[in-house]
Amino acid sequence: MAKVADKYLKVDPWAIIEEGFDPERNRTSESIFSLGNEYMGIRGYAEEGYSGDSLQGSYFNGLNEQLDIGNHYKGIIRSLRYMVNAVDWLYTRISVNGEQLDLAKSKISDYVRKLDLRSGTYRRELIWHLNDGKSLKVVFTRLVSMTMSHLGLQRVEFEPLNFSGSVDICAGLDFSIIHEERGECMWSSLRSGEQGATTAIMARTANTANNLFSSFTLQSSQPLQLTRVEHDKFIGQNFTMELAQGESAYFTKLVINYSDSEAAHTAEELWSKGLALAESASQLKDTQIFADQTAYWNAIWETSDIRIEGDPENQQGIRFCIFQLYQTYHGDHPGFNIGAKGLTGEVYRGLAFWDTESYCLPFYMFNNPKAARSLLDFRYKTLPQAMQRAKHVDCEGACYPIATIDGTESCDLWQHSNLQLHVGTAISYGIWHYVKNTGDKEFLHSKGAEMLVQISRFYATRGQWGQQSGKYGYFGVMGPDEFQLMVNNNCYINLMAQKSFEYTLDTLREMKEQSPTAFAMVAEKTGLLDEELTDWENKADNMKIPVDEVTGVFEEHDGFFDMPHIDIHSIPVTEFPLYSNWSYDRLYRYDMIKQPDVLMFMFLYNGQFSNEAKLANYEYYESRCIHESSLSPSIHSILASEIGKPEEAYSFFEFATRLDLDNYNRNTREGLHTTSIAAAWMNIVYGFGGMRSDGARLSFQPTLPERWNEYSFQVMYEGVLLRILVNKTSVTLTAIHGGSTDIIVYGQSITVDASGTTLPLGEGMLAR
Amino acid sequence: MAKVADKYLKVDPWAIIEEGFDPERNRTSESIFSLGNEYMGIRGYAEEGYSGDSLQGSYFNGLNEQLDIGNHYKGIIRSLRYMVNAVDWLYTRISVNGEQLDLAKSKISDYVRKLDLRSGTYRRELIWHLNDGKSLKVVFTRLVSMTMSHLGLQRVEFEPLNFSGSVDICAGLDFSIIHEERGECMWSSLRSGEQGATTAIMARTANTANNLFSSFTLQSSQPLQLTRVEHDKFIGQNFTMELAQGESAYFTKLVINYSDSEAAHTAEELWSKGLALAESASQLKDTQIFADQTAYWNAIWETSDIRIEGDPENQQGIRFCIFQLYQTYHGDHPGFNIGAKGLTGEVYRGLAFWDTESYCLPFYMFNNPKAARSLLDFRYKTLPQAMQRAKHVDCEGACYPIATIDGTESCDLWQHSNLQLHVGTAISYGIWHYVKNTGDKEFLHSKGAEMLVQISRFYATRGQWGQQSGKYGYFGVMGPDEFQLMVNNNCYINLMAQKSFEYTLDTLREMKEQSPTAFAMVAEKTGLLDEELTDWENKADNMKIPVDEVTGVFEEHDGFFDMPHIDIHSIPVTEFPLYSNWSYDRLYRYDMIKQPDVLMFMFLYNGQFSNEAKLANYEYYESRCIHESSLSPSIHSILASEIGKPEEAYSFFEFATRLDLDNYNRNTREGLHTTSIAAAWMNIVYGFGGMRSDGARLSFQPTLPERWNEYSFQVMYEGVLLRILVNKTSVTLTAIHGGSTDIIVYGQSITVDASGTTLPLGEGMLAR
Repeated sequence: MAKVADKYLKVDPWAIIEEGFDPERNRTSESIFSLGNEYMGIRGYAEEGYSGDSLQGSYFNGLNEQLDIGNHYKGIIRSLRYMVNAVDWLYTRISVNGEQLDLAKSKISDYVRKLDLRSGTYRRELIWHLNDGKSLKVVFTRLVSMTMSHLGLQRVEFEPLNFSGSVDICAGLDFSIIHEERGECMWSSLRSGEQGATTAIMARTANTANNLFSSFTLQSSQPLQLTRVEHDKFIGQNFTMELAQGESAYFTKLVINYSDSEAAHTAEELWSKGLALAESASQLKDTQIFADQTAYWNAIWETSDIRIEGDPENQQGIRFCIFQLYQTYHGDHPGFNIGAKGLTGEVYRGLAFWDTESYCLPFYMFNNPKAARSLLDFRYKTLPQAMQRAKHVDCEGACYPIATIDGTESCDLWQHSNLQLHVGTAISYGIWHYVKNTGDKEFLHSKGAEMLVQISRFYATRGQWGQQSGKYGYFGVMGPDEFQLMVNNNCYINLMAQKSFEYTLDTLREMKEQSPTAFAMVAEKTGLLDEELTDWENKADNMKIPVDEVTGVFEEHDGFFDMPHIDIHSIPVTEFPLYSNWSYDRLYRYDMIKQPDVLMFMFLYNGQFSNEAKLANYEYYESRCIHESSLSPSIHSILASEIGKPEEAYSFFEFATRLDLDNYNRNTREGLHTTSIAAAWMNIVYGFGGMRSDGARLSFQPTLPERWNEYSFQVMYEGVLLRILVNKTSVTLTAIHGGSTDIIVYGQSITVDASGTTLPLGEGMLAR
Repeated sequence: MAKVADKYLKVDPWAIIEEGFDPERNRTSESIFSLGNEYMGIRGYAEEGYSGDSLQGSYFNGLNEQLDIGNHYKGIIRSLRYMVNAVDWLYTRISVNGEQLDLAKSKISDYVRKLDLRSGTYRRELIWHLNDGKSLKVVFTRLVSMTMSHLGLQRVEFEPLNFSGSVDICAGLDFSIIHEERGECMWSSLRSGEQGATTAIMARTANTANNLFSSFTLQSSQPLQLTRVEHDKFIGQNFTMELAQGESAYFTKLVINYSDSEAAHTAEELWSKGLALAESASQLKDTQIFADQTAYWNAIWETSDIRIEGDPENQQGIRFCIFQLYQTYHGDHPGFNIGAKGLTGEVYRGLAFWDTESYCLPFYMFNNPKAARSLLDFRYKTLPQAMQRAKHVDCEGACYPIATIDGTESCDLWQHSNLQLHVGTAISYGIWHYVKNTGDKEFLHSKGAEMLVQISRFYATRGQWGQQSGKYGYFGVMGPDEFQLMVNNNCYINLMAQKSFEYTLDTLREMKEQSPTAFAMVAEKTGLLDEELTDWENKADNMKIPVDEVTGVFEEHDGFFDMPHIDIHSIPVTEFPLYSNWSYDRLYRYDMIKQPDVLMFMFLYNGQFSNEAKLANYEYYESRCIHESSLSPSIHSILASEIGKPEEAYSFFEFATRLDLDNYNRNTREGLHTTSIAAAWMNIVYGFGGMRSDGARLSFQPTLPERWNEYSFQVMYEGVLLRILVNKTSVTLTAIHGGSTDIIVYGQSITVDASGTTLPLGEGMLAR
């Protein structure tokens, strides 16, 4: 846990600010200054062209390419999908008298970039000192619209400081972009041209034949004479702007990107729909677009802000997290999911993992329940792929993929894709958790129950009976702890599968009684048999959950307690990350764990374990955990808060909100740790706020970190927006809107309404 | 074990004969009719060109190419070596009046091919019926010389049956051969030309820059007018022969192939050495070469023949096995080893496995001890690579590769190359076994001891202490049974490592006392420390060898007895081979084993286990073994003989000698099962002959399979060639040459000399 911050950016409550240009940090900043609107995302790269090191990333959710893999074993995937780097729709080239602006070569000063969390815009400004002594101030502002998914906006302003003259501009759309991992461009041009004021191009991916339409129209402070430039995979317009000393001039590029990612179109359809969207967007004033964006974000902050007094760094950090979570996903598109790096980089290939249900879903459930439902809808939509995958691995029902962009398994390491069985349990947990906290039975009956049946089928066919133990469980698996590669009876998987069976049975029983029509539909659609219900009950009842009766410590898997011991503190710091410095096979033969596994289910089904059990397991596993996953520390922090270890809780929290801002893992250059960002939110709300959402009613056990004066967070619960404000002496709970609701605070049931309820800060809850 | 013979070839005691041409079986026959001389091997393909399905394979031992593999984990290999398909030195094209001979297109009759096991030649004859009504008899004979490694010979005879006229021939050397798995030609031409009567070409592999020189000179029944033909990667000579009706004419192509496989040369050196070899070979008469080859094989059969009366099929089968074993390896080149398919195909990439020491070494030890030593010399020669590999996987000492052609690890599946630790133990067992039975202490002192030290070091650093058991063992391993992919404390590995430690310690102790100078040299060279000896002793003494005290059954690995049970007989025949029909992950989660694991060590250290223990373990593991390895049945047969199950013993033997001749596994087309062929030899000698070579003296417990009238086999023991003849009533042991020796027969010590000793066939040893 020897993580060290790389402090660089300016601390500000509502913005991320970089002053000065550091080429060494450029890729890291490109990740941090990413913009996105769930539909598309764009890294904070220099749109005017940059000949230094840069990852010019432009991504569209769900838009993917296929890579074939040489493999001849059955059950191991033969091809995978990955998020493809797409059109550079910000393409701009700026020259004065033939000298071109390029931060790697040009002389510049007063460079500032700023991501404004309230307006949802990214702005760069600089003064360009030309070779002939001219100084030109340039300001770039961009946004991707949160209200119109397909709309991107770029505004470039010029102010000549010591001259009057002209600037030459090429504004374009460039599909010749290289996918970095593959080292090639995956696009071929289908069509390009102009219609009215719109300049457009459409291209197609090589293997998946996904089409993407991209277009722009220009607005400007002065009339523009456009000259079309076209070459392979590129279309643009050249124009010249006349500048007067001390006066500002600008042009705005309104971009419409329209892809196949939600539904397949013929190229012809896509082209004409794209042009229609472009035509209507061209009617908008850029000022109105900026205003709409600010209004959207205002509403978000009204609902979802976390306020921390006395800790400006974490204040900035948590707002950055919330901002990025909304940028990555807010549920407008049920066909999308959340890649491990969102739409900010190519590492992890844009794939969604079990992180979605285990780490991200609570944020959406309690801020934007519609988005939470959309995430579950994605799993419903991809149920056919999961059922195909189950067949592929000789099982029945639905085997959800460990990594996916379109519902098909896309992890090319068989040891992960064939052994990590816990995605299905994460989804059934997600359904349970979502329905419990939102009361959305409609979803449960129309989609959830069907998924539960197919998930249970998978777990009923993948499992086996131990010959000596006579118990049911899973052999040849990898649990969440990826440092135990292929084991039998991983306690997490066994317990989660047991819960999954039980919830399925409960759901079906309740539906049969209370909603017989819905039940009949599910039963018919899935061909459900009575014997299956008996079978699942039997397997759940006889699931092997190994626990040491004396210590109360769960055994992570069969034989874990005999695994050779290593004192993790004896490992030299230089050997981290172990994945890079240890022989691959060596990682897997110690009692060392990568991330919470037993502790993870103690977090998820928190109410079912005594404090003693939590303490015993925390002490045992925390001392063996090296946190070689960015998802790990927050779970430890939450449990540490609960069992009365506030200092450890804070220590695990320390880099949660600023993991990327301070580049703790030194790999932010590859993209943001988007799903970890969700864990940072949980760390505050479930950790310090002590919220628990796995019981009959939502409950809180707030604590206040020693270094903070006060903090507040908000959660949406059964239609009521609750604000929980914690200061050094008290906790105030208020229903901001939606009426009143019953919750539990420090073990006592209370009704919270608009007038608010104040309680003393819980005993022992003030950290030393 | 539902293997079914595909009976096709003619049964003959000294030859393999195919009558008629079956394109469907062509590849299978190409494998069976392979010729080799350890240095080079050539499949039985049609040298005149064949436009149908064929694997035109020409291989040189040790000659390899490199393939880079995309992998970024430490300890997993990043490139591998594989045996490259090389020059078609038999290249011949035959036309009459522009019509070219091609078995896929031409009309032919009286086609016969024959592999003569006594002359070591392969002959094809046919009558070619031309479109214009002419009939031409053509006879192709080839050999690769067992006495001159670099020499190959091809003789082509023509006899026009109903016409006189001319035949046009092109005889050449073709490097444009495609490596089938890679789908490309790995060769680029370096040089070609003529010198005197020699036509030569030299080419180089793309990545490893291995050079191969190839040349020919021609002899003929008539003077030839040659016209050189040259194009990229090819050189040849065109000539015309005049044929008279009813008269035979021939030409002979004497080929010299000379490669870098033993030692690196500059291209210049190789070219001139090759030309010198070609010049001296051109002085030889082809009749003399044929005679030398026959004489060589006569000597082999004098030493190594196994005679079976009353079973013509197995008689042919076992001689084919012995023939192929000598063709693949006879120890002239210490830099070579035995690929799983010898020099007969590209599957398994020409790589040598632990099969060499575990399955092949006994054949050589008891037939050709010099060859056995050469095999161990290969391991000594590649000790540096094994030491490098140990470092690569974070260990010390020597980690011998699971699959190799040049000493470097070349298995690209990490689960095998990083987890299958038993190669080192196979080598230390091989040293022990070889030295025990040959008395070659010189080898032990000069090379063996050094290897033993480095092997022990590896096992002392790769192993760990169980936290609960307090025992030493190996975590995260795969034993010989490849159906248990990643387990802890595989009993085979643990026991073999224990034996390896003990033998190392015994050897060093004995050397220190009896050969202090040799000991000092080893100690110095290896930097041996006294603490290491203590450490190894401690680890050997505390090795975990799990056994059920009640039943006496060894537990294959921690938790094996709890593995879910499957009745292997319940698996439908259509699902075999399971590797092709089951999801990869599913193979690994039953109490089903692929090949002997516990039973393997009971075979290797046979004398240390009681008959009861053997019976108990045989009953337990045999019923769980699906023999999805061609190496498996013979070990079961040998143990079945020992524990008094003669019918099972015969049933497991049934396809041992004819695995390829009758194409039991339906994959002989890919190449011969060369290392299984060695197991067939063991099956007769150790199984029916009841030989044991792990005790103080060589011992025998002969039985006679019910279907046989009589059989005899021969073994070289301490310089004495023993013949063991078994008939329905008696066993006669004779020292054919080399004086006399003491052995044990049916538990009694006897001295065998040239006069022979006859004993009654052991009680209960005549099969029912």
